[in-house]
Amino acid sequence: MDPGRAVDEDIDELEMLTQPGREDDLRTFLLLLHPADVAELLGHVHEQTALSILRHLDPERAAEMVSELDPYDQERILKLVKPEELGSIVGEMETDDAADLLQELDKATADRILASLPSDDRDDVAKLLRYDPDTAGGIMQTELVAVPLTATVGDAVEAVREAANEVDIISVFVVDERGRYAGNLALQDLVLSSAEASVARAMEAKVVEVDPKLDQEEVAKIFDRYSLVELGVVDADGRLIGRITADDVHEVLVEEAEEDFLKMAGTAAEPEVIYSDHVFRIVGQRLPWLMSTFFAGLLASYILQSARTIYESAVVLLMFVPVITGMSGNVGTQSAMIMIQGMAAGHVDKDALFRAILKDITVSAIMAVICGLTVTAIVTLWKGHPALGLCVGLALTCSMTTASVLGSTEPALLKRAGIDPAVAAGPLITSINDISGVIIFTLISTMFLEFLK
Amino acid sequence: MDPGRAVDEDIDELEMLTQPGREDDLRTFLLLLHPADVAELLGHVHEQTALSILRHLDPERAAEMVSELDPYDQERILKLVKPEELGSIVGEMETDDAADLLQELDKATADRILASLPSDDRDDVAKLLRYDPDTAGGIMQTELVAVPLTATVGDAVEAVREAANEVDIISVFVVDERGRYAGNLALQDLVLSSAEASVARAMEAKVVEVDPKLDQEEVAKIFDRYSLVELGVVDADGRLIGRITADDVHEVLVEEAEEDFLKMAGTAAEPEVIYSDHVFRIVGQRLPWLMSTFFAGLLASYILQSARTIYESAVVLLMFVPVITGMSGNVGTQSAMIMIQGMAAGHVDKDALFRAILKDITVSAIMAVICGLTVTAIVTLWKGHPALGLCVGLALTCSMTTASVLGSTEPALLKRAGIDPAVAAGPLITSINDISGVIIFTLISTMFLEFLK
Repeated sequence: MDPGRAVDEDIDELEMLTQPGREDDLRTFLLLLHPADVAELLGHVHEQTALSILRHLDPERAAEMVSELDPYDQERILKLVKPEELGSIVGEMETDDAADLLQELDKATADRILASLPSDDRDDVAKLLRYDPDTAGGIMQTELVAVPLTATVGDAVEAVREAANEVDIISVFVVDERGRYAGNLALQDLVLSSAEASVARAMEAKVVEVDPKLDQEEVAKIFDRYSLVELGVVDADGRLIGRITADDVHEVLVEEAEEDFLKMAGTAAEPEVIYSDHVFRIVGQRLPWLMSTFFAGLLASYILQSARTIYESAVVLLMFVPVITGMSGNVGTQSAMIMIQGMAAGHVDKDALFRAILKDITVSAIMAVICGLTVTAIVTLWKGHPALGLCVGLALTCSMTTASVLGSTEPALLKRAGIDPAVAAGPLITSINDISGVIIFTLISTMFLEFLK
Repeated sequence: MDPGRAVDEDIDELEMLTQPGREDDLRTFLLLLHPADVAELLGHVHEQTALSILRHLDPERAAEMVSELDPYDQERILKLVKPEELGSIVGEMETDDAADLLQELDKATADRILASLPSDDRDDVAKLLRYDPDTAGGIMQTELVAVPLTATVGDAVEAVREAANEVDIISVFVVDERGRYAGNLALQDLVLSSAEASVARAMEAKVVEVDPKLDQEEVAKIFDRYSLVELGVVDADGRLIGRITADDVHEVLVEEAEEDFLKMAGTAAEPEVIYSDHVFRIVGQRLPWLMSTFFAGLLASYILQSARTIYESAVVLLMFVPVITGMSGNVGTQSAMIMIQGMAAGHVDKDALFRAILKDITVSAIMAVICGLTVTAIVTLWKGHPALGLCVGLALTCSMTTASVLGSTEPALLKRAGIDPAVAAGPLITSINDISGVIIFTLISTMFLEFLK
């Protein structure tokens, strides 16, 4: 597998085929490719070329392809498409993809396209647009096949036949007389049961249902827990209003991991901006977080300068500041990240939180003592001054331990305060630990110099 | 949804039901729960209680439940189970879950259990054990339903019927006369096609197939790209040897995100150890990485001390070291993490790598200039010494820019060297940037003092 090479060749071919007079060859070439592969190629060619290719596809295939485009390319290419052309493409998209797309467009264009959709689709898409994109409602689709509990397997087969062109069927949903979600009939059981069998007997009762307001990360956890391939979403009365499929959840996992990653990198975590070409907008997302380190650094300088008289009598002490701040920052970040991941993955649950924090601090204290003894030995040998060695060693042990106390408790505190713990692992914890490290170092240095007097 | 409360109640009930004489109530209680929910409960009770519960389940249900246990609980509970009991449970597991479990056991026990399996299962599991757990071969299962291209839809229905009890069927695989993977017949098409129709016409030709040696992260990308629900794995001759399903990939995504996270936290990235209770083994995974910062910090101290004569004449300069190292470390980490995530998610591809690095350096240089000017202004106002302000500002601008050059190029360099770029975002980049920051600061301070003479 060497996708890189194949893409380059396909791009060359594609650009040749967009020359006037080669429309038929272009259409044939596009038909042979998977929509996802066409989408990738469109990401690599000029917008105008992409536009002319899009116009050569029928609306259904164009819709599949647009759904596959990544958000950057979607924005870049679709701003060239006329709203009425876009309307016919959106009309062919699955409701969840259509809602995602409309959300990215400006309000006026989105409304115009929405108004141009057939009334059924319009209502469904409008409903989806009302949910927060990061919730079950925001990722569900309204297309599904449902039959009543009283139906026979034969009825269900008929329902599948009617919907097969419009809906990607994974299983048949079963609802009671009031439309409440009751269970799913696997296609496998549809194949194996006799047509007269009752759906109520052939189905599997629902394991779980979710509210449209449930956070998408929780939805992903439920999928993982029960190894689901699809999941029903119900309203407050338990009525089935949509479904979430395994590939929606796959997207959630990828997206959430990316956002956590960018948050920890100390950014506003909007991949659409961070990976765009808008240099100043990227600065706007990265700089505010860096500024927190900046003021923390200045505060650390201020603390050191306040103890000027101490340090001026023993300048050598100041030269160990990088060891103290570096080690405190890293051990604190380690502790914070291990705790964040443990909480997210369920290794650390609510009852065990205190024990997990205590264990983390024990681990860090052991490491702090090892590092403290090592630096004492090194500085003593290097400078021939055991008291200096002891001072640096003691300060390192204390500041590393403090850093891990702060690092391991911070994620749980932030979570309780309603803030995403992932931000704790970024510049925030480093800044706090730089300051605490400098304070501890200054206190211990002061005591040490008092003692030597 | 408040899972926490429900779990507590269920645990109380479960502990009551494990009293002697209540075996029937226990069995009924367990039958009403989903295996995943039973597995969660077992994670919360004492090993002995868990063991007695496990013995109350029939091997098939016990197998489902053991597959759902997380690795820590699996290890904790299964070490109490006798190998022959474990053998009958493993015999009921899906081949991929069985192989995963055996991999976690000690060699002698694993071999004994393997030998006790029925010969078909034994060969399949033994084959799976030969693949690296992080590859397509390591996550695939050998259970699948396959029919030849020459079969009819009726034959395929019959094949589904025969396998339905043993295999979780998502679609029917179609192979040619030599066993080579040709395509998939969706269950939906099985429902809708007439029994006489040819499988070759009703199926969808395969979009993609993978080699068992392909890395599991690549497998996840392929699933995402083509929105797959299952995927065939083929040997060197193209013969179908196994399948990977969406829930396997779901696990891969969760696992890879966790490992990347732990790597960035500066650990050896083995969640089984990091979240265990073995304090000294955790120290063993965390300390080596911290030590790299430790020696980097000492090297920074050494550099500062080598320029002792400079700094002794202007001690105030040393007090700005935390600003310089803090900002360099954070901007370098930001750049590295943005680049790592961009490479992993495909936002930054090979052709565009140089451009992405250049853009990152541009963004960082703008931020560096803003921070440099700000610190110049602050230090000038604070200390009433414009030359000092300029010196710190210039050093900050240069060291931040250097840090981002190092941070944004490091991931690609590590990747080329065959090292996982995620390690670049951890202590490694912080250490390098601490040292480069201190060197740049010392150089600029030296020039500044020369100039003032």
